Parts: sequence; C-alpha cells; structure tokens
Amino acid sequence: MTESRPASPGTLRPGGRTAKVRGAVLDATRDALAETGFHALNMDRIAASAGVGKTTVYRRWGSPVGLVTDLLHDMAEQSLPAADTGALAGDLRANAELVRDTLTHPRMGAVFHAVIAAAACDEECARALAGFYRTRLAEWAPVVARGAERGEIPAGTDPVELLRAVSAPLYYRFAVTHEELTGDVAGRAAEAALAAARAGVFVRE
Amino acid sequence: MTESRPASPGTLRPGGRTAKVRGAVLDATRDALAETGFHALNMDRIAASAGVGKTTVYRRWGSPVGLVTDLLHDMAEQSLPAADTGALAGDLRANAELVRDTLTHPRMGAVFHAVIAAAACDEECARALAGFYRTRLAEWAPVVARGAERGEIPAGTDPVELLRAVSAPLYYRFAVTHEELTGDVAGRAAEAALAAARAGVFVRE
Repeated sequence: MTESRPASPGTLRPGGRTAKVRGAVLDATRDALAETGFHALNMDRIAASAGVGKTTVYRRWGSPVGLVTDLLHDMAEQSLPAADTGALAGDLRANAELVRDTLTHPRMGAVFHAVIAAAACDEECARALAGFYRTRLAEWAPVVARGAERGEIPAGTDPVELLRAVSAPLYYRFAVTHEELTGDVAGRAAEAALAAARAGVFVRE
Repeated sequence: MTESRPASPGTLRPGGRTAKVRGAVLDATRDALAETGFHALNMDRIAASAGVGKTTVYRRWGSPVGLVTDLLHDMAEQSLPAADTGALAGDLRANAELVRDTLTHPRMGAVFHAVIAAAACDEECARALAGFYRTRLAEWAPVVARGAERGEIPAGTDPVELLRAVSAPLYYRFAVTHEELTGDVAGRAAEAALAAARAGVFVRE
C-alpha cells in the first residue's frame, strides 16, 4: 500500500501497535474517501480493509466523521515544511505549486474533494478542515515574515491573509468552478498575491 | 413567498402558465435546497410545495439534477447587470460586495452551499454551475475593458482572470475553509485583484 501511494502523507509511521492500527485505519479511510467519497464511508469496510477489528474502529473513531477528522489531524501533522528559496516570490510560488500538486494528484485530489464535501455537510469535519488549513498556514507564515524583513513587502503584512490569497484561486477552481488547474495557474496565483502584498493590501489595520 | 424572499432572484416571472409552473417549481427547488440541501432533494415534495402535478415535474425535469441545472440556468438569466461607477476600483468593489452579499444572504448562501455540493458529486450539476459563472463573468467583463480603455490596468488584461481573482477569496472562505465573510473581506478581495491586474499579472500571453 505504501509503495502504491508514494505522494500521499502518513503512509510511514514508526512506533507501537496503536500507531500501526491508526496508520492502517487512516490509510484505509483515505483510500475509501478517494474511491467512494464521504457519503459512502463505511466503518465495517474500513475495518476490513485496514485488517483491524470492527470494535476497535467503532471504539476509537466512533463514526465516519470521527475517521475524517482524525485523518485531517494526521494530514496536518504530516504536512511538508515551508520553502526557503531566499526570495518571497520563490517561496510563494513553491507554496502555490505544492497546493496545485496536491489538488491535481489523482488520489490526494479525490481525498480533498471528499473532505471538502464532508466539511460542507458536517460541522465537526468543517472545524477539522479549518484546523488543517490553520496548521498549514502557520507553517508557512515565516516565509512572509522573512520577506518583510528583506523589505520585499511592507512591514505589518498579515501572513495568513497573504497565504490565503495564494491558495484561494486554486481552491476556487478546484472546489467551486471545477476548472482544471492547468497552465501556469499556480505561478499566477503566487504572482497576484505578491503584487497585492507589495501594494499593501494585506497590511494589518 | 415572494415577500418572504425579496433578495432571491426569479421570484417574479411574467408570462403564461408554462412560465408560472417553472417559476413555482424552481422557487420550491430553491427552498428545498436552502432548507435540506441537495442530497435530500425530493421530486414529490417539490411538486407538492409548488402546487404542480408530480407527472409534470417528472416529465419536465426528470430528476433532482434536472431541477438544480434548470435553477442554475434561471439564476444566470436573472443575474443583476454589472456596475459602472466610472472607475475600475469601484466596479470591482461592487462586484466583490455583490458576491459577498449573495453568499452571506441566509437563503441564497444556503442555496449556493447546496449547488456547490451538487456540483461536487454530479458532473451535470458541475457543468451547470460552471455555466452560471461563465454567464456572470461575461456580464462583468466590460467593466475590465472600460478600465483598460481608461488606462487603469494594462491593455490585454484578461477580464475573466481578473474577475475570477475577485471572487476566489470570497468563495474559498465560503466553500473550503468555512470562515465567515466578515469585516472588509470584499473590499480586500477587490483591492488585491486590482493590484495584481495593475502589476500585469492577468495580461494574456
């Protein structure tokens, strides 16, 4: 399974049986989300494909919502470190390309469609998805701080607002208009956000 | 019903019985989407609340997907004309505020959550939603052309790319991160898109 999904996070976990069980169940949850989506998520089938007892899955995760929220916590923990190319333009482009590569990855794109759908119809999933993005944004915030220190953008630029501006055009196409993330959509998203930041649009009042 | 939803489009339709039937069925579809979402859409209940025979609804719309796609066609037809404040900054702000007002309107916000969810799980709904946005963007494209003629942005700026950039941060919060569209999020979306346009980010290659 690990070999079959090199790009998907959380496929290698050290540590004891509990960690191994969680890893197997979350991998199975990711597979199920990618293949059938949130509405078809089935605790018994996930237990079976994870090779874990049903009672363990019901006791530890309780419901499909519990599985999705734990998967999102795990994805946040596993997320990659921020870039440091020495220039804000390069770091923002790397961030945009990471988002685009995740959303266009066949399995991870399907997982994100599923978790966004889950968040749309369940408050707990929505909170977990928001938490996932908070973690991602916090990891990348230093990129913006370094850019401000280098004088590439105005002091007082809100890192989260700027990083949201990089992600927004990609997610808008992915989740709302269902346009393909083709051409240089990632590069344009990064350039547009940087131009707005340079103009002072994201400076905290 | 009309009085109860002043801000929702398509509640006043002139013309004959066919138009009246369509109006009643689409109003009932909008109500059902806002109240229970796409997955609970029920043809019989919609026929009943529209005061239209089930056979008519099944014959003309065929399925819940048929109802949602026709509602989206109707919403596109009913959409408001573009602003013309005399300056691109004002026109883009008006566009951003229109998007924000629609997404934060109790009933229309719920309808948009439902049609976005429908688009996420049905290809035909996705095409209809994309068509709705194409129509909206085409209506607002002259705003960008006028701004370029006035020299406010570079010649060759892609109107659709610029207008997408205005909507994206609002829809990203609405449909993905589920953050409230509070404060001056609309104003910032318009300013950020304009700054990027001024920097030439949306000039067609």
